[in-house]
Amino acid sequence: MIRVGVAGYAGRMGSAVVDAVTAADDMQVACGIDPFGSEQVFPTFKSIDEALANAEFDVLVDFTQPDVVAGNVEKALSAGKDCVVGTTGLSNDVLEGLAGKAAGDACLFYAPNFTTGAVLMMQFAKAAAPFFPEAEVIEFHHARKKDAPSGTAVRTAQMIAQSRGFESEAPGKETEIEGCEGARGTLVDGVPVHSVRSMGFVATQEVIFGSMGQTLTIKHDSWDRTSYMPGVLLGIRSVKERSGLIVGLEQFML
Amino acid sequence: MIRVGVAGYAGRMGSAVVDAVTAADDMQVACGIDPFGSEQVFPTFKSIDEALANAEFDVLVDFTQPDVVAGNVEKALSAGKDCVVGTTGLSNDVLEGLAGKAAGDACLFYAPNFTTGAVLMMQFAKAAAPFFPEAEVIEFHHARKKDAPSGTAVRTAQMIAQSRGFESEAPGKETEIEGCEGARGTLVDGVPVHSVRSMGFVATQEVIFGSMGQTLTIKHDSWDRTSYMPGVLLGIRSVKERSGLIVGLEQFML
Amino acid sequence: MIRVGVAGYAGRMGSAVVDAVTAADDMQVACGIDPFGSEQVFPTFKSIDEALANAEFDVLVDFTQPDVVAGNVEKALSAGKDCVVGTTGLSNDVLEGLAGKAAGDACLFYAPNFTTGAVLMMQFAKAAAPFFPEAEVIEFHHARKKDAPSGTAVRTAQMIAQSRGFESEAPGKETEIEGCEGARGTLVDGVPVHSVRSMGFVATQEVIFGSMGQTLTIKHDSWDRTSYMPGVLLGIRSVKERSGLIVGLEQFML
Amino acid sequence: MIRVGVAGYAGRMGSAVVDAVTAADDMQVACGIDPFGSEQVFPTFKSIDEALANAEFDVLVDFTQPDVVAGNVEKALSAGKDCVVGTTGLSNDVLEGLAGKAAGDACLFYAPNFTTGAVLMMQFAKAAAPFFPEAEVIEFHHARKKDAPSGTAVRTAQMIAQSRGFESEAPGKETEIEGCEGARGTLVDGVPVHSVRSMGFVATQEVIFGSMGQTLTIKHDSWDRTSYMPGVLLGIRSVKERSGLIVGLEQFML
Repeated sequence: MIRVGVAGYAGRMGSAVVDAVTAADDMQVACGIDPFGSEQVFPTFKSIDEALANAEFDVLVDFTQPDVVAGNVEKALSAGKDCVVGTTGLSNDVLEGLAGKAAGDACLFYAPNFTTGAVLMMQFAKAAAPFFPEAEVIEFHHARKKDAPSGTAVRTAQMIAQSRGFESEAPGKETEIEGCEGARGTLVDGVPVHSVRSMGFVATQEVIFGSMGQTLTIKHDSWDRTSYMPGVLLGIRSVKERSGLIVGLEQFML
Repeated sequence: MIRVGVAGYAGRMGSAVVDAVTAADDMQVACGIDPFGSEQVFPTFKSIDEALANAEFDVLVDFTQPDVVAGNVEKALSAGKDCVVGTTGLSNDVLEGLAGKAAGDACLFYAPNFTTGAVLMMQFAKAAAPFFPEAEVIEFHHARKKDAPSGTAVRTAQMIAQSRGFESEAPGKETEIEGCEGARGTLVDGVPVHSVRSMGFVATQEVIFGSMGQTLTIKHDSWDRTSYMPGVLLGIRSVKERSGLIVGLEQFML
Repeated sequence: MIRVGVAGYAGRMGSAVVDAVTAADDMQVACGIDPFGSEQVFPTFKSIDEALANAEFDVLVDFTQPDVVAGNVEKALSAGKDCVVGTTGLSNDVLEGLAGKAAGDACLFYAPNFTTGAVLMMQFAKAAAPFFPEAEVIEFHHARKKDAPSGTAVRTAQMIAQSRGFESEAPGKETEIEGCEGARGTLVDGVPVHSVRSMGFVATQEVIFGSMGQTLTIKHDSWDRTSYMPGVLLGIRSVKERSGLIVGLEQFML
Repeated sequence: MIRVGVAGYAGRMGSAVVDAVTAADDMQVACGIDPFGSEQVFPTFKSIDEALANAEFDVLVDFTQPDVVAGNVEKALSAGKDCVVGTTGLSNDVLEGLAGKAAGDACLFYAPNFTTGAVLMMQFAKAAAPFFPEAEVIEFHHARKKDAPSGTAVRTAQMIAQSRGFESEAPGKETEIEGCEGARGTLVDGVPVHSVRSMGFVATQEVIFGSMGQTLTIKHDSWDRTSYMPGVLLGIRSVKERSGLIVGLEQFML
């Protein structure tokens, strides 16, 4: 039974982690850490220091805030706890610095994206890219999304461009007819990206590869925050047999 | 048994019409007309005049050239023949002028698009538009296509805009992040249109409507010229019971 | 300003109706009716009799229970109120009987499905069916759904069969290889229907039509109960100019 | 410049290989072998013996017949030529026996499927399977296809079942309502497979994975025999640096 400490258990993501860990057969919530938390069926603490002093746990899961996460993780790693971190805003330098503080074979696992399907979509796109002369990305998001394209779409396009190492010869923006600029999307490192917006979508992305007489399409749909949880559980299960810094859920998937 | 005269029978489309008419149970090729044609199992003529003088037929199907079609149709209509015209480049004024020459209840049927599925896609888009706050068009064509967006995509967007009579409040080009202009496509009368190009496609179009918690998608794929033929046969079967000028295959479908 | 009475306002659907009516510019909640309801910003009553005696409203919206709906509607219609009914379980005979009680030009509108996109999907399928030799239905629902296929899929298949009036010549169950019975789905009036189940879906249906060299696909996705509301508002807006019995949201859409 | 011998150059696949090799910058057709072939711009021979005696080439590509392929390959391998084999009907035992005859570091490469996108679809499905509780396969083929499901669909389902090593808890055939047997498809090693047939399709397959709140879909479309050729060229380029028996295009892709 893996004993899990949940930092930020009172937050939106943290409370979903509590539910998912509780529902899993092979792990349990050993304690929660949150200065704004209320009482729970598991022991709760206001700070990482209190938790380390009073509770036993194997893995710290941190979905907190950019100004808190580094301190939590440094103390947990120093105490030999594995860490699974979903809080955004940690640079590679900071991550490497933190990993240097790990006692024993403690593992620091950081993932910018815990959605298993989205991570595989990107990795498959990277693997397919060298074999198809053309690739395009279409992303569909809710009308409340205030930037286009999405960060995931930009990263996917960059990964495709880097992986294939050639320039597509597909007709580009020069074929846009007058007054229809934008029809061919925006080019991210040479890969056309198209953004669709409607209150009818949550978060969908499609990567389309083409060559003579065939297309290969990889599509990911998500409509609920629960789609993060299988990835978090996978991280919790995987860190105990690893050590040092590991970045990206794909490290445990492929 | 409907007797069909095929003008342009030696051309790419005309010869496909000959095959389709021959394969149908309720019609036959009564004659072919083409100055560049070779002998066939049916009587062939070099001009519409010769054909009218020497052959009996009920319907003239014309897939010829912009400089020939008007003369063919005028003579056939004057002789009381129904006409099914797929040759492009006839303005509404010209069509109306030609229809005025029809003897008896001869019918002039002109369609810019004979692909049944593409015509329905556009008509359904028009019917759905008033009920969805957002609509976008994505078209996918072969890498040889030298203009973007496609004419069908532009017309579809125009039909949506006219039918709904309101402006979408979906986030627009102002949400494109710096350096990513074009992500939200090109706006055709306020409807975003996106063009995808690859040698892996022939001709596909998708119209996506969205409102709270739902999307409705209408998609048409075609990969072969034979997709025109059911529409041509539908035209041939429909003109005998109609008269005057009729434009658009949807007139016989909805 | 249309004044709306909401029967069943304390229920799941009824409270969503209250929210949607409140958010709309051209209507307001005039009263709520529910024996189990709590106090609201609008006047509330325990029964339709109380409401008719004490409140002014133009339209009654009823999302209640099969054993209550008929009584509510009969009294409202007798009092000259238009009715928009989403409660299921009313037979055609009962509906006609109720409509016979309408005073003046009161309208009884009943819809088995208020999701605008789902209704259009079915109507478009019906319209397209005569023009395509093959049609199949694929529906995708959540893993909690305990019957296959869905009622909407069955009705869609029946509508296609009735509309086209011919039998498909597509290869059928006789082409299923040994041990793979079920590959070609279940035939509903000759139309193959396939059911996919996963906790990754909410409710999606796809109708695929094919003929030579082309396919036409009509797809509807919904992931939220709010997808019903545009249809309810459309019903409320439409009944005032109609009278007698009207069944099906498509009556106000096409 | 890689010198390629093409066995079966007069056949449908062989002549496509000739075209593809000719069009590529880094290889050329050194000779053709076919007892039924006519003269070509490259030297032609009636048998592998003649070709080995009279022509210089590095790689033999064999798209011939089940009764010829083994003899061709044995002689070519014995003479130290690499072989790329697309002729079907060679068992693993036969392949291993043939590979044992290879002189020097000659490589025998055999692939049941040369379509790059189809191969990746299967490999990605295998990689994704362990991370999703549910998976289903839908394949869409032309109405002329006389068996259901397709061989590729069956193999994909088998790979998913083997890779994930657990049984799905998705609702199964026991949820099919009376008279609708087949709605949940056919189970291949526990994975539901659905087959759609229409003259509007060529060859399409979709693998759909689902978990809480998300789906991942991998789809492959092909509509032309040319879709084999990038895989054949990849095989030709890859064998020179390999030796012994290699089975499956994925060996050169992932």
